[in-house]
Amino acid sequence: MKTKSDKILLAHGGGGQLSDELIRHHIVPRFKNDALSELADSAKLKLSSESVCFTTDSYVVKPLFFNGGDIGKLSVCGTINDLAVAGSKPVALALGLIIEEGFEFELLDTILTSISKAARENKVAIVTGDIKTVEAGAADKIFINTAGIGERISGVDLGFEKIAVGDKIIINGTIGDHGMTIISQREGIKFQSKLKSDCAGVGGLSYQLLTKTKDVKFMRDPTRGGLAATLNEISRGSGLSIEIRQADIPINPTVQTAADMLGFDVLNIANEGKFVAVVSPESADKCLNICRGHQLGKKASIIGEVVERSDIPAVEIETLIGGKRIVQMPYGRELPRIC
Amino acid sequence: MKTKSDKILLAHGGGGQLSDELIRHHIVPRFKNDALSELADSAKLKLSSESVCFTTDSYVVKPLFFNGGDIGKLSVCGTINDLAVAGSKPVALALGLIIEEGFEFELLDTILTSISKAARENKVAIVTGDIKTVEAGAADKIFINTAGIGERISGVDLGFEKIAVGDKIIINGTIGDHGMTIISQREGIKFQSKLKSDCAGVGGLSYQLLTKTKDVKFMRDPTRGGLAATLNEISRGSGLSIEIRQADIPINPTVQTAADMLGFDVLNIANEGKFVAVVSPESADKCLNICRGHQLGKKASIIGEVVERSDIPAVEIETLIGGKRIVQMPYGRELPRIC
Repeated sequence: MKTKSDKILLAHGGGGQLSDELIRHHIVPRFKNDALSELADSAKLKLSSESVCFTTDSYVVKPLFFNGGDIGKLSVCGTINDLAVAGSKPVALALGLIIEEGFEFELLDTILTSISKAARENKVAIVTGDIKTVEAGAADKIFINTAGIGERISGVDLGFEKIAVGDKIIINGTIGDHGMTIISQREGIKFQSKLKSDCAGVGGLSYQLLTKTKDVKFMRDPTRGGLAATLNEISRGSGLSIEIRQADIPINPTVQTAADMLGFDVLNIANEGKFVAVVSPESADKCLNICRGHQLGKKASIIGEVVERSDIPAVEIETLIGGKRIVQMPYGRELPRIC
Repeated sequence: MKTKSDKILLAHGGGGQLSDELIRHHIVPRFKNDALSELADSAKLKLSSESVCFTTDSYVVKPLFFNGGDIGKLSVCGTINDLAVAGSKPVALALGLIIEEGFEFELLDTILTSISKAARENKVAIVTGDIKTVEAGAADKIFINTAGIGERISGVDLGFEKIAVGDKIIINGTIGDHGMTIISQREGIKFQSKLKSDCAGVGGLSYQLLTKTKDVKFMRDPTRGGLAATLNEISRGSGLSIEIRQADIPINPTVQTAADMLGFDVLNIANEGKFVAVVSPESADKCLNICRGHQLGKKASIIGEVVERSDIPAVEIETLIGGKRIVQMPYGRELPRIC
């Protein structure tokens, strides 16, 4: 007879004995560090700077497990990336779990192990956390929130206001991989070459880029809304226009095929291991080389530049056949629960 | 004809135009501050200390609105309290919303206004946030996560290891109000005197307590699991026993009646505007007076003390009729979705 439940019970979120067991047996051993071990209401941290970045993201991705990652890895990498592109070095994460009653412990453990692995690989510590349970039917299996603190990199100050006409737009690799993996898996569609999410923490690469050059003006990770949303935000934020060339945008052919088949524009599809960097024209080649020398930037490319326009700022793309079209801000309904 | 939806659509979480409108029209105007206004991936903060507390909490309370508060107020106060009892001054919160498709904008706006009010009253800024939407049936209306940063109060270092035999246990007011309000409202039970949640941010009071005296050893807020769980955690953490007197524990008579009727032990019931402070015997009266001079501590009481025991550490209560019984760590199934 099994004496312990192999599923999450409501009582695991009740703040009593079962919560305590869950935390001591499933959480703490995986995320060992001094701050967490105290199991206090808050983690006490000694940062190396008073200038910090602070961010939060909830993850509701469906399915929970996908080729290239799972909700656990995603919840670490996604939040790290938000801190990294803001010009900081991610150091600490807070982990909030909302779990549906009846969720299998085996799956929870797999997700927790994945969180732990991603945190270790990206050199951040899970220093505090919270677990809530809700009755069966009140949530879809598990939702994860990670909030994070990054120490701002000395001398680095990124911002829309730094962007100038002539600046180059760099992306560190192929686009659309995460989104097309999720949607294909959800729809049960298989391709000859397997789609794989690009889910990864770009903190290591962005740190190199920001410390080895001083000419990065702005960075952002093109997640929900894809490259199209990010470029439109940059255009609006800077008040300048952007021209990109389709021929220079790295796209995995299977991703392109999948997007064409399913009727999506790859520009609108979410990425989870990518950043867009706006850099001065003089430093563009150096930045590109730094990217290409890193595991997460081998297919980096200069995809376009910042230009002046007489009318309202916009993003324009030169298509493969030489035509030009406006890249709109996506409406938002393309892909729910993509991250 | 209404041109705008009065309900949340999946696209509001899609990272495109609708997400942008939701953030610009419903979020930003309510939480105006420099860090948030940038709408960057992360907020840039300049703290006044490198020593910080960092915490996270998700809120899944049901019902969303209750006498004395709502999920919005709770999500601010609960996280502030975690920072406060750790010996810090709460300064910044990150707000993560998970919203079910179809949730009424009117309710969302009410909750956002409540968050904004609670943040202002407690002098913390909502500096960053994230919104996710999930399809109808995949979540129960709205879940809120708040993560928070507090600046550690100079010279204050609370910890289990500071606790010594003879130390006094103080609580800043009546217990069980939050939990009994939620459960009564959920069960549709009405009492002559209305139950009201104690939901409040104790950061102001705890700051006074920690800066005006130097003899506070440890603080914790007795939320899920109630006073029973908190005292058991203190006993286990310090390796010492605790004796409390039922006669000295402030309890609102309606709360006691409700608990008796419904078969709950008030000691196990959640509070959301309370802290337990362990203080040196010499400073106990001074601490009590500081509490009683504050709006949130008028009914503060010294409820017991830390004692030595020959066998394993435990929490014992002297009942009204003079008997003694062990206060167990609650199992956890008393009240799901209480916060």
